[in-house]
Amino acid sequence: MFLGFQKNQTWWSQNIDENLKLKVTGDSKNILVKNHYLSCDPYMRLLMKNQSTEIFDPYTPGAPITGLGVSKVIDSRNPELKEGDLFWGITGWEEYSLLKSSEGLFKIHHTDIPLSYYTGILGMPGLTAYGGFYEVCAPKKGEYVFVSAASGAVGQLVGQFAKLMGCYVVGSAGTQDKVELLKNKFGFDDAFNYKEEPDLNAAVKRYFPEGIDIYFENVGGKMLHAVLLNMRVCGRIAVCGMISQYNCDQPEGVHNLMSIVYKRVRIEGFAVADYYPQYSKFLDFILPYIREGKIKYVEDIVEGLENAPTALIGLFNGRNVGKQVVVVSSQ
Amino acid sequence: MFLGFQKNQTWWSQNIDENLKLKVTGDSKNILVKNHYLSCDPYMRLLMKNQSTEIFDPYTPGAPITGLGVSKVIDSRNPELKEGDLFWGITGWEEYSLLKSSEGLFKIHHTDIPLSYYTGILGMPGLTAYGGFYEVCAPKKGEYVFVSAASGAVGQLVGQFAKLMGCYVVGSAGTQDKVELLKNKFGFDDAFNYKEEPDLNAAVKRYFPEGIDIYFENVGGKMLHAVLLNMRVCGRIAVCGMISQYNCDQPEGVHNLMSIVYKRVRIEGFAVADYYPQYSKFLDFILPYIREGKIKYVEDIVEGLENAPTALIGLFNGRNVGKQVVVVSSQ
Repeated sequence: MFLGFQKNQTWWSQNIDENLKLKVTGDSKNILVKNHYLSCDPYMRLLMKNQSTEIFDPYTPGAPITGLGVSKVIDSRNPELKEGDLFWGITGWEEYSLLKSSEGLFKIHHTDIPLSYYTGILGMPGLTAYGGFYEVCAPKKGEYVFVSAASGAVGQLVGQFAKLMGCYVVGSAGTQDKVELLKNKFGFDDAFNYKEEPDLNAAVKRYFPEGIDIYFENVGGKMLHAVLLNMRVCGRIAVCGMISQYNCDQPEGVHNLMSIVYKRVRIEGFAVADYYPQYSKFLDFILPYIREGKIKYVEDIVEGLENAPTALIGLFNGRNVGKQVVVVSSQ
Repeated sequence: MFLGFQKNQTWWSQNIDENLKLKVTGDSKNILVKNHYLSCDPYMRLLMKNQSTEIFDPYTPGAPITGLGVSKVIDSRNPELKEGDLFWGITGWEEYSLLKSSEGLFKIHHTDIPLSYYTGILGMPGLTAYGGFYEVCAPKKGEYVFVSAASGAVGQLVGQFAKLMGCYVVGSAGTQDKVELLKNKFGFDDAFNYKEEPDLNAAVKRYFPEGIDIYFENVGGKMLHAVLLNMRVCGRIAVCGMISQYNCDQPEGVHNLMSIVYKRVRIEGFAVADYYPQYSKFLDFILPYIREGKIKYVEDIVEGLENAPTALIGLFNGRNVGKQVVVVSSQ
């Protein structure tokens, strides 16, 4: 679920009063925006390590962190966005941001849906679930699908997509309440609380006695270890993320990689940016399901920028139930 | 490079004098064969563990072990093979074998090439290199290719295929002699002795300062760990085997799996049996290269069935130089 575009995008930001419009600038593409909703996403933890990757550079200490959000244009010298436009994309964790370009910003046209959904089902996590499941997993009707972190921003959608496809779907989560949500709200065939399973291999085998065709990987570590032992021949593992490892100084070793050979398994990482060209097609697909109530989405909404750091940290111990959103300003 | 057909094949065998033809049997498909060349392959070690996999059941203690070989039909009640036919396929580690069916046996039509080559370049390892490289790796001209265990039965071919494709190819091996072989006989662009590298990550980085597009994985463990840190975006890892792990009670953990996500890497295991339908096409491809001397093949030939166990064990400490073959009878 990695962004894949952030590294080449530049921006700068500052605290700014709403009444202070953008008067003078040497850069004609600048956009002054008011931030409404901020998205807490696991990848952000990785930007707090002092290392660059192919996808992103680390945060700069002392500057506001950045992340995905839903914002409104206050003033613009950019022909792509005009005053009053709503969009989602990378912005700053602050009330107002001054963005240097419109690259990676998506104008919002459908406002009959809650705006916060553009941090989730209608934004990066939604497109991640869509590209990761339909393209990377290459699912077929009747296949056995396992989703970890299944009540999260991406997992809850993958499970529902898999059900639409006619798959058998089991999810794992970290509390009994989340397990109930998976079964009763999202329609998973079954679900379990991984924290109550002393032997993950046995747990996975219990839910998939015939093995797993598709594993949508959100957590890594011990769960991947157990899943590898339970894959079916020609199974696929779409690696969206490995949240269990992001707070580790040294990632856990995964030992069962010979299963890849025995079972001819394909493991594939992907970046959501590869699917951005399909965003419009994705909206055509998902909007009717949302409007008809056939796909549900659960958000965990926290009020106030001051509560954003706690909300972000909460992702890594599973405090959130559903997509974690921070409301900076609902108006 | 896993076989993928062995599990459903049945055979039985016994010591038999050459003059003792097959007289009485309740099974009309029986074939009595004389074994000429036996193939030492890493996967055989895995059949000595007391565990079944999707691909094969373990060896039966007390019975002759089985493996690939080149054999001649002495007598046959099977319409697929007649007396005097040469073939390669699964047989017993013994002078004569009584095979219960012709399933998985490939009749040999081209005898201008050394018969022992049907244990290697013209047999399972050849087809493994062909399917694994051209299909699983999906190579493109100019890409950076790394092959481990590169002077082995499969590796030496993968490197030469990659050169034919116009790739930049580096191989790793375990002695300086093998390194010279890779560079001077097989035409690799470069090669290194992994046993002399205290830091495999640094070694891989030194040979691939711009990263690896394709890794043909034969060894697993620490080498995979190092390679994952040096993959390029959208790189591919074809997992043929992990010989470094076959003697381990507990496989080593691989820690750098987040690289799969950062770099959108695809890791894929495969079984040579998936490419058996392409065997005839493969022969059309490879035979002219062999006859014209454009593809080389190095074998390590041991004389005598009594030396076969030592030869097989030698694979796991790299004693062999090239494809390890045992001659049971050259006539």
